[in-house]
Amino acid sequence: MKKVSLVLTGYGNVGKSFVRLLLDKREDCARRYGLDLELTAVLRRSGGWLAEGCEDFESLAADTTVPLESHSGWTPGLTLEDALSRTSAGVLVECTPSNWRTGEPQLDFLHLALDHGWNITAASKGALVVDFKNLRAKARTKGLALKFSGATAAALPTLDVATISLAGADILRIDGILTGTTNYILGRLEQGESFEAALAEAQAKGIAEPDPSMDIDGWDTACKLLLIANSAAEIDLTLKDIKVEGIRSVTAADLSKARAEGKALKLLGRLIWDEGRYTAEVKPVAIEPSHPLYRLTGTSKGIAFLTDTMGTVAVTDGKSDPRGTAASVLKDIINIYRD
Amino acid sequence: MKKVSLVLTGYGNVGKSFVRLLLDKREDCARRYGLDLELTAVLRRSGGWLAEGCEDFESLAADTTVPLESHSGWTPGLTLEDALSRTSAGVLVECTPSNWRTGEPQLDFLHLALDHGWNITAASKGALVVDFKNLRAKARTKGLALKFSGATAAALPTLDVATISLAGADILRIDGILTGTTNYILGRLEQGESFEAALAEAQAKGIAEPDPSMDIDGWDTACKLLLIANSAAEIDLTLKDIKVEGIRSVTAADLSKARAEGKALKLLGRLIWDEGRYTAEVKPVAIEPSHPLYRLTGTSKGIAFLTDTMGTVAVTDGKSDPRGTAASVLKDIINIYRD
Repeated sequence: MKKVSLVLTGYGNVGKSFVRLLLDKREDCARRYGLDLELTAVLRRSGGWLAEGCEDFESLAADTTVPLESHSGWTPGLTLEDALSRTSAGVLVECTPSNWRTGEPQLDFLHLALDHGWNITAASKGALVVDFKNLRAKARTKGLALKFSGATAAALPTLDVATISLAGADILRIDGILTGTTNYILGRLEQGESFEAALAEAQAKGIAEPDPSMDIDGWDTACKLLLIANSAAEIDLTLKDIKVEGIRSVTAADLSKARAEGKALKLLGRLIWDEGRYTAEVKPVAIEPSHPLYRLTGTSKGIAFLTDTMGTVAVTDGKSDPRGTAASVLKDIINIYRD
Repeated sequence: MKKVSLVLTGYGNVGKSFVRLLLDKREDCARRYGLDLELTAVLRRSGGWLAEGCEDFESLAADTTVPLESHSGWTPGLTLEDALSRTSAGVLVECTPSNWRTGEPQLDFLHLALDHGWNITAASKGALVVDFKNLRAKARTKGLALKFSGATAAALPTLDVATISLAGADILRIDGILTGTTNYILGRLEQGESFEAALAEAQAKGIAEPDPSMDIDGWDTACKLLLIANSAAEIDLTLKDIKVEGIRSVTAADLSKARAEGKALKLLGRLIWDEGRYTAEVKPVAIEPSHPLYRLTGTSKGIAFLTDTMGTVAVTDGKSDPRGTAASVLKDIINIYRD
């Protein structure tokens, strides 16, 4: 049995789902993978919770609606550095919402964790998008894992397929439907709804954020494409290398034209290998019925990789709620310690 | 750079494609993965070819239509044991066609390789199907890799997704279209062709074997399902645990009924978790348009996993020609040596 300390940053929907999932799956992970996963700390902005043992964890996980500050392990002013220094290095589970323009506050957390010899699995994108090249280089130099399935379409295994299943193949193209919100809204537009009504409906259902611009304008897709492309093709794209167009400008005429041709309009994140270099873009594209992503309706996501030796390999669906994201975080942890 | 010796058994279509692919990808593997892959021997029934160095390999790979026996390294009577004993342990690349009822001659090869401390990647199913439990136990006891992507739908990453991408999740159901031949024939039947004509056409195109019964009667699907299910769910299915029905009995009435209901008839390999145990079966099933495998026409393959925490994750397409199979073998080798 290998003991693995986990420190969680962020106690929002995903952080809480991870705590709950860990309670449900801890025995299973011990039995199936020989991993004794122990949550030793949970950090928030104003301080952190520290576990003195298994009982503390169980009491935390039993009801995640109880504020972290009400538990006996709550330590005002606790810093991530304090939390990391208390146990031997394990995995930082990074679930703090982060600004995708500055990467903060996540960026400091990730560097600090690597500096202290901790592996990382991140569920939020900001810091990775802003500083991918440096973070990857630092993790490699130190022989640490830097994983981020939770930030790249969660239960849809975009990164596993790109880096493990396609090992040895050259990626000639990536097509991804990577944002559930935009796929949902495009579907409603197809059915004749107005953009405003479709967006309001998505917001009412909790599919779209109160400020939906990151999704609608294509930046969520662009961020995920950047992380997937850089991992898959070992390149160093930054956001400014990606031409980004969202779905605000999609007209009824665009949709009718696609429909008349038997196609479906989808917001795709695309990486294309052409004339010796990769180009990346996000834009609405009308795709044929034979395209592996054509059938994806509602909030479904998917990605198709065109390769030199394996043909096209597509992976689709996968839950994208907080529990699905938490499950992808747990998967990363298990895979870090597997032989 | 890590030097890895490779011994290949079998020099048919897949074996030759692997040799050719290795020539194309060797430098790439060194650059991208730090692996110096060296083919040291190729075994056939009557003897084997031994490489004295890189030049011998290049001369072999330059033209795989030249019989192995015509190369200077040909050694009549060479055994696998001789070949394995000549270098430090690496990977046995098993591409010998094997009998799926007896597992021979592959079964002896696999045990011998494990006994000599070699990792394995197998492209043929027979021995694995016959002796899965023992082979897996032996590989684990010795800390060796036993991989077989090439035997479980090749470039379609069924095993990677099952064991890596779904780590930590419970698999509640597997639906797989795992045999290209039967999917192709069902498609032609849908278009009004007779079974005999569809089969003859598939044979003429090289899609179906001269003796098509393994595919048509569902055994190819059953063998792949067995290997995937045992790996994914950590169980010990044998062929007699799987209820197998092929497509010989599919009638025009079955197809019309499915079509009238807006469904598509597919030969599925299925694993279902129910009342505390798994049941496995192969049979034609009419699936809904919303099913992730509905769109798969022609020789396309795919697999959908229903899980407790990640929802449904489906992976589709992937080349199934000898080069696609060789690429999946190379992928296994790379992943054996990755950290």
